[in-house]
Amino acid sequence: MRSYLSQRKTEISDFLDRYLKERGDKLLKAGPWAAQVGDSLAAFSSRGKMIRGALVYLGAEVFSGEVPAGTVELAAVMELLQSFLLVHDDVMDKDELRRGEPALHAQYRTIGYDEKVSDPQWYGNSMAICAGDVAAFLALHLASTSPAPQGIRARLSELISEEIAFVGIAQMADVHNGMSSTELDPQEIIRTYRFKTGRYTFSLPLMVGAELAGAARPEREALARYGEAVGIIFQLKDDEIGLLGAPEVTGKPAASDIRENKKTYIRAAMLAEATSAERRRLSTLCGSDELREEDVEFVRELARSPGVRRRIDALVGEQLDEVKLAIESLTAARPEGKALLEELRDFNLERVR
Amino acid sequence: MRSYLSQRKTEISDFLDRYLKERGDKLLKAGPWAAQVGDSLAAFSSRGKMIRGALVYLGAEVFSGEVPAGTVELAAVMELLQSFLLVHDDVMDKDELRRGEPALHAQYRTIGYDEKVSDPQWYGNSMAICAGDVAAFLALHLASTSPAPQGIRARLSELISEEIAFVGIAQMADVHNGMSSTELDPQEIIRTYRFKTGRYTFSLPLMVGAELAGAARPEREALARYGEAVGIIFQLKDDEIGLLGAPEVTGKPAASDIRENKKTYIRAAMLAEATSAERRRLSTLCGSDELREEDVEFVRELARSPGVRRRIDALVGEQLDEVKLAIESLTAARPEGKALLEELRDFNLERVR
Repeated sequence: MRSYLSQRKTEISDFLDRYLKERGDKLLKAGPWAAQVGDSLAAFSSRGKMIRGALVYLGAEVFSGEVPAGTVELAAVMELLQSFLLVHDDVMDKDELRRGEPALHAQYRTIGYDEKVSDPQWYGNSMAICAGDVAAFLALHLASTSPAPQGIRARLSELISEEIAFVGIAQMADVHNGMSSTELDPQEIIRTYRFKTGRYTFSLPLMVGAELAGAARPEREALARYGEAVGIIFQLKDDEIGLLGAPEVTGKPAASDIRENKKTYIRAAMLAEATSAERRRLSTLCGSDELREEDVEFVRELARSPGVRRRIDALVGEQLDEVKLAIESLTAARPEGKALLEELRDFNLERVR
Repeated sequence: MRSYLSQRKTEISDFLDRYLKERGDKLLKAGPWAAQVGDSLAAFSSRGKMIRGALVYLGAEVFSGEVPAGTVELAAVMELLQSFLLVHDDVMDKDELRRGEPALHAQYRTIGYDEKVSDPQWYGNSMAICAGDVAAFLALHLASTSPAPQGIRARLSELISEEIAFVGIAQMADVHNGMSSTELDPQEIIRTYRFKTGRYTFSLPLMVGAELAGAARPEREALARYGEAVGIIFQLKDDEIGLLGAPEVTGKPAASDIRENKKTYIRAAMLAEATSAERRRLSTLCGSDELREEDVEFVRELARSPGVRRRIDALVGEQLDEVKLAIESLTAARPEGKALLEELRDFNLERVR
């Protein structure tokens, strides 16, 4: 699966570079920033793993042995949308680094200093908000001009715009929850996982690929359910890595999700299983940037406790059942296609970073 | 023209309320903020004059005596896009008021205080960025599901996404110029007027209406040129109002554009015509929030000087020639349609606020 994904990345990246270069030139008539934005979005996108783009290929391959017209274009659309969302997210989260380089707002802040603008910090944020908006509309423009047949193109515009609106709504909950002091209901956490990770990262690109391959509506809906379940598994793994992952592997400090006060499912499970003394200690540690080694140990022990494991395993088990049902209900899928979906599920189950 | 516009507003506003209510319910599965966003975008949009939406009707009427399928939907799309852009603009410009009410980020900041979040100010900005993004994708979703014929719908998605990408590029220039201390070349100012006002406010909705009415490509391109020229006239009027308008009419302090350091065309003309002593004085006044009455008088006198008037009148004259040529080149337009375009031109020439 890893090599499958990285192979697609090369194709998508090459296409996106060309597309953004050509678009940058066209957009230049609207102002001098067009070329800069095109270049910087191309560089920004190329540093990602391009999983979402690759899943467009995979979604098509589930049903067809050939790569349908429009696949690379729609894969590039997914990556431009991801860039748009990350650029805005980084502004909101005040994240300074992204994909090993300064976040886009930090890059524009540097330009602001160089150009001696009146408020480089705010200039960086404002320019990044605009650049994100441009990425979003370039994505939609590319979707509406792809070589896919007109009927498919029309349904894709509808599907993509609806799903990204969902992401926006889920992102609002994320912003709210990140700044609010109330703990979250586990069902609410799962809902955010379903929409921000499941439907967006997995269901949407798979459905787009299926649509390109001409799959019927029930098939696409089965892929949507598959993607939601796989996304929840992905996110639960992400939570474990954020809590138990070694800093040399994750590139973040130990127990970073606790430091960042993230309202994860595993945290909800820990709070549910903890004694009241443990719960009090955990609550003081959440959001603290001064975690001692013994605090990290305390958190990790709690995370590894049988009660917490049982809760996580039960949720993973439910999602695996969903995955199984979804794959079974794909009546038009090729056997190789179903095998790919199983590989993708296992890839998520086994990931360690 | 004023009554033409306000009549359309009622239709668009009613439709948008219904649409956002229904969409808000659908989006609820992605998170609890959906209903709130739907309501707040409906309220926000309904406080605008909805000129862009009304121009979709006008663009169709140029060619057809009937209102084509999809007109009210696409008019609502224009208004949702306008809300998206204004919400993001207000964040970037730190504007507290919009359409007589607190700007959206200020409304979310209040919610943040009520909910005792950790950083209400930043919470307000972040939630407004998300709400703007949701508005953008709701607009595109509505465009892709309108009852217009499929071929027209596909071309509209392409047209709208391209033009809004242009707006994003022009907005970057605006952000940059607003914070940079260098004066702008008049041609650069006209380019921003052409894209941020002309193509976006006038050309785009008129072209959308023309497309709905089945107008051919050369007709739509003539409308684009018409819109660019009318938009430049609109913006020049806006500059005059921002400099010469009475506070009781504009609702802003006298010479507000000078206080806000706006790089307008009239300012460039004043700088070009001023003596070097006047130029120095004008430069110190730009961006100052302590304008005395005599400073305002000085600025206004300069703005009314024959040299400045000549420059403005020459540019308006050029645009009027463009408008005339564009209207003449509309071979498929109805006489009533051409008359409407002339009325719209005069409406912009004569506006005082």
